[in-house]
Amino acid sequence: MKDKITIVGAGLVGSLLAVILKKKGFDVQIFEKRKDPRKSEIAEGRSINLALSHRGIRPLKMAGVFETIEPYLIPMKGRMMHDQAGELTFQPYGKEGQFINSVSRAQLNELLIESAEQAGVDVYFDHKCTDVDFEASTLTFENGKTIQADLIVGTDGAFSAIRKQMQFTDRFNFSQHYIEHGYKELCIEPVDGKFLMEPNYLHIWPRGNFMLIALPNADKTFTCTLFFPFEGTPSFSTLKSREDIDSFFDQYFKDAKDLMPDLVDQFFHNPTSSLVTTKCEPWHKNRSILLGDAAHAIVPFYGQGMNSGFEDVRLFAEMAEAMNWDWDKILPEFSNRRKKDADAILDLALHNFIEMRDHVGDPNFLRRKKLESKIQEQYPKEWIPLYSMVTFSDMPYSEALRLGKIQKQVMDEFLQQEEDEINFSKVMERFNALKQGGWKAGQ
Amino acid sequence: MKDKITIVGAGLVGSLLAVILKKKGFDVQIFEKRKDPRKSEIAEGRSINLALSHRGIRPLKMAGVFETIEPYLIPMKGRMMHDQAGELTFQPYGKEGQFINSVSRAQLNELLIESAEQAGVDVYFDHKCTDVDFEASTLTFENGKTIQADLIVGTDGAFSAIRKQMQFTDRFNFSQHYIEHGYKELCIEPVDGKFLMEPNYLHIWPRGNFMLIALPNADKTFTCTLFFPFEGTPSFSTLKSREDIDSFFDQYFKDAKDLMPDLVDQFFHNPTSSLVTTKCEPWHKNRSILLGDAAHAIVPFYGQGMNSGFEDVRLFAEMAEAMNWDWDKILPEFSNRRKKDADAILDLALHNFIEMRDHVGDPNFLRRKKLESKIQEQYPKEWIPLYSMVTFSDMPYSEALRLGKIQKQVMDEFLQQEEDEINFSKVMERFNALKQGGWKAGQ
Repeated sequence: MKDKITIVGAGLVGSLLAVILKKKGFDVQIFEKRKDPRKSEIAEGRSINLALSHRGIRPLKMAGVFETIEPYLIPMKGRMMHDQAGELTFQPYGKEGQFINSVSRAQLNELLIESAEQAGVDVYFDHKCTDVDFEASTLTFENGKTIQADLIVGTDGAFSAIRKQMQFTDRFNFSQHYIEHGYKELCIEPVDGKFLMEPNYLHIWPRGNFMLIALPNADKTFTCTLFFPFEGTPSFSTLKSREDIDSFFDQYFKDAKDLMPDLVDQFFHNPTSSLVTTKCEPWHKNRSILLGDAAHAIVPFYGQGMNSGFEDVRLFAEMAEAMNWDWDKILPEFSNRRKKDADAILDLALHNFIEMRDHVGDPNFLRRKKLESKIQEQYPKEWIPLYSMVTFSDMPYSEALRLGKIQKQVMDEFLQQEEDEINFSKVMERFNALKQGGWKAGQ
Repeated sequence: MKDKITIVGAGLVGSLLAVILKKKGFDVQIFEKRKDPRKSEIAEGRSINLALSHRGIRPLKMAGVFETIEPYLIPMKGRMMHDQAGELTFQPYGKEGQFINSVSRAQLNELLIESAEQAGVDVYFDHKCTDVDFEASTLTFENGKTIQADLIVGTDGAFSAIRKQMQFTDRFNFSQHYIEHGYKELCIEPVDGKFLMEPNYLHIWPRGNFMLIALPNADKTFTCTLFFPFEGTPSFSTLKSREDIDSFFDQYFKDAKDLMPDLVDQFFHNPTSSLVTTKCEPWHKNRSILLGDAAHAIVPFYGQGMNSGFEDVRLFAEMAEAMNWDWDKILPEFSNRRKKDADAILDLALHNFIEMRDHVGDPNFLRRKKLESKIQEQYPKEWIPLYSMVTFSDMPYSEALRLGKIQKQVMDEFLQQEEDEINFSKVMERFNALKQGGWKAGQ
């Protein structure tokens, strides 16, 4: 039980994994290329704030750190849609009492690093990994240091240095794909120490090919994110002057604009960032394995990037314990079993962007939503909407994706009928016939 | 006209491009990481011998080097299929007088490097590129040398160092995918200075999920290549002992085995190699561009890897001349226009593996082939089989792929009828209706 485990990347996934493995008795160290975020004035890197939900919470509880984190969470009960006239419509995320949680990435990361250090993990910052020898299971860092480990875990994100090295080994499949949209963050400041919109919602301004969203922060600000094409009209490429930006926001996001007096300055000052999706296979090479974004970076539109990474950690730790920490068997097994679920959430996240920004005004989509809520009223346990399977359950993502497709097919079939003629027991019969076996809770 | 053009990679595509651009008056140099192949005993790297066809020949003629190369070509008029009993069946590649050409990669490469040097190109071997600064348009080599150029062309193959650098720039899409099959080369030696099989054919032993092929060489040998899964039964992983190999070849390739007395030794001695497909987009960054395998590495099953790379060279040079060598305009335009054709030949090559190894015994496939040859008899100019569009024309690959799909659809529709009831003018009517506009020769 004293295997030496080296984790590359002290982000969310790496820090959480370190806590769990350290508490299992291993000799755990983390190497992070950036400076200690607790000592830098401004957190570097990505800052979309995050939506923590069931799949992320369960591993935090497993690590015994959820209680530390809970005070920093802001519950969001559903989507608050803003139309062009500023009218609001509420869509709950799930049943009464179900919600997701807005949390600052930087805050959460600092808490997890703190927890890792308190558990006895050695965390080395300013250590950029430049080379991996998969045969010898050694890492080399920019400062010349070389480390040997019984297990190397790459949790170093979408642009993983460990994965980059794997890419040049034989038969390693890899893809990176940037979507046509980029994003820019904007901030709604509080007035008199108060939130300027209702805080317990994820606010959305869906506008067809683009959208604005806003999540609440503990300091009473909202972080707004504009997801917008790089090219075309309108796009980042067409918003050149102060007037362009001003009239664009007047036209599409008037109510949000009114809450940001310095909007144009923010727009010029804040960077425009791109959104990448990556896939690879296998996730391991000898005694090295990738987890989280390093293995499967996804777009943020299902709020599952961090949650899926944390779920990787739980499943990996559970499998490793069940297989008696026999890494040579665990690594290929985990990579093989988990891959299909990572592929599934990747597809779900890409697809949810279209739903969020575009389908809201689509009559077919609205009819389907209406039918679904009726089915659910009658069969609350048998028919779980796709969003809930993804967000509020442990069901494998691939199974959620499969069932979601079947649900859509069934609804499309029954929507051929007049609404008041639909026989709901026939709907469930059809659904059950199509879904057959599949996953059951507790498996 | 004295722009400095630096080409990275002195393989087939890079050497040919160098000849053409030098003859247009540019200052051209090539940097190659390997040693001069003319001075090494054994050519390093890939050695599947190649099938040179129309799309490859035209750029060689454009460069004025085809006459030098022609004597080294061995025409192959069609496929010679070997069944398990050793029975032979001939399938011509095209019309009377149409053929493809077997040529040694090493031989062709040496002739092209020689031609480049004769044209006045400076070729530097032992120069491994380690870094590219796309902003400054500079290359750095392992020996410390740094070069600035007006145009940088990466023709450094499937594992391109230039592309590797592009991969870490924003919004660069990339994928590398290895197929489930690997390959191993084997050699049939001549006896009494004579070929042991008919030389003017591409010999194929199709066996469902795997196959053996053989191409003739100028020295009267045949290079055989076994394309075979890495895993499963049978596969490379199940052929462990001398007896395994012996009985496998006895069962599936008896007639070929009889021509290789040292087969088992060759099998153990020769490496097992993998087969990769790569895609990227865009192909350029500022003043740097990728051509050939560096931009689009494909599997070898359509015999179009080199041919598509040579066609890149012709189209790039033609476009550049037409756009008055204005690189800042040419690079995005070429990348944008050619990409869909590279994607098309990539798909065609993957699909042709299934046709070569598997469809030969498929009754639907054979009925379609029979129908196609009847259509073609009656409409030799209007109905050109997919293989001929790819191999014997300049039609964009994407258009060949599109027309090939339409042809398949039309044939599948008419194969619902009894064979002797098929009205061929109706077939053509349907084909013409579906294909509408599209590409015309001379465009």
